[in-house]
Amino acid sequence: MSRAVVLLSGGLDSATALAVARADGHECHALTFRYGQRHAVELAAAAAVARSLGVAEHRVVDVDLRWIGGSALTAPIPVPKHRPRDEPSPPDDIPITYVPGRNTIFLAFAVAWAEVLGATDVYLGINAVDYSGYPDCRPEFLEAFARVARLGTRAGALGGDLRVRAPLAGLDKAAIIRLGLSLGVDYGLTHSCYDPDAAGRACGACDSCQLRRRGFAQAGVPDPTAYAE
Amino acid sequence: MSRAVVLLSGGLDSATALAVARADGHECHALTFRYGQRHAVELAAAAAVARSLGVAEHRVVDVDLRWIGGSALTAPIPVPKHRPRDEPSPPDDIPITYVPGRNTIFLAFAVAWAEVLGATDVYLGINAVDYSGYPDCRPEFLEAFARVARLGTRAGALGGDLRVRAPLAGLDKAAIIRLGLSLGVDYGLTHSCYDPDAAGRACGACDSCQLRRRGFAQAGVPDPTAYAE
Repeated sequence: MSRAVVLLSGGLDSATALAVARADGHECHALTFRYGQRHAVELAAAAAVARSLGVAEHRVVDVDLRWIGGSALTAPIPVPKHRPRDEPSPPDDIPITYVPGRNTIFLAFAVAWAEVLGATDVYLGINAVDYSGYPDCRPEFLEAFARVARLGTRAGALGGDLRVRAPLAGLDKAAIIRLGLSLGVDYGLTHSCYDPDAAGRACGACDSCQLRRRGFAQAGVPDPTAYAE
Repeated sequence: MSRAVVLLSGGLDSATALAVARADGHECHALTFRYGQRHAVELAAAAAVARSLGVAEHRVVDVDLRWIGGSALTAPIPVPKHRPRDEPSPPDDIPITYVPGRNTIFLAFAVAWAEVLGATDVYLGINAVDYSGYPDCRPEFLEAFARVARLGTRAGALGGDLRVRAPLAGLDKAAIIRLGLSLGVDYGLTHSCYDPDAAGRACGACDSCQLRRRGFAQAGVPDPTAYAE
């Protein structure tokens, strides 16, 4: 059985990516980072999702990004609420919730682990339709990273291949939700909010909550999330 | 004054890269990783080199790579000694001292930090002439990573640039040593050995010691290192 490493944040997208990896027939090794995120409650969600979807292994790794800063998710900067989200962010409007280096760093770890596991594929849940406007979620970024993964690894140097897969890249949030439901994802286990309250309850107003709410509404499916507002 | 982030291991190459970044006129921010390396004595060397070359800041960051394993530098696997090094390693002879993901992970952190510092350049000391045969030291790897840095960052998304520089890429070890000496590097402060003894003394027989010894010999310069054999 082929192996895959799946980046699992505990959010809606990565849970769906894990379900796709499983449906593709892989033995899944889920990888989650405790990076100093404001919404560390997502770590418990990741564990619940991993259990629910039956991974072979779930690793939670400490990779502190707070010393780098520059983001509302890792530094004492307020998370914007009720931002209008009807238009995609232009390139000069990268939200303050963007975390410099996050996807590159997480992918680098995932590829390294895949190499040692002998995994053939790395899955991640990034998408570029209903997304937050982060540069490291764009398809061209992912293509560039896939080349790094091929060239910078033992597998790649020996002529093998290590594929980086973003199965949700072309889907909007409603389509992601429909796909996940068809593959048995329990979205009640997932957490999307950037700024939950002390009890871990989603705020309902940050970009991530807004995208999630709209996705369930557009999919015509009940949103299992309890929002604070 | 423009800023640069410099990856500084404490070895001969990265010390030289730092000296080049300084000579290029940058305010230098040095970045060193405590990654669970067998030769953690290099961390003290990095601090001494950073001090000696007058960096604006030197950060030592904990990024444990031991859980990934797969390398003699991070797992309980013996470091090979007295390997014949007259021929470049063919691609199917990647040494066991190769650390999966290391350069990609370190570069990802360096680029993220550069982004937040507003740095224009990231320097690293990799080279592909007298090197250990690692896939993530090849020029094509570095070109691919430079593209990731351009596409995955705020700077890149806004049309700016963040250059990844490997000023030693085309130099052999003797040329690196001559260059560093011309720029004021004190190689007595640097540490290259993969497998030092308890006192931190270089073994003299691992790939890295052999490359270093041969480099000083070919440069016709006294090697300041005290080797165990």
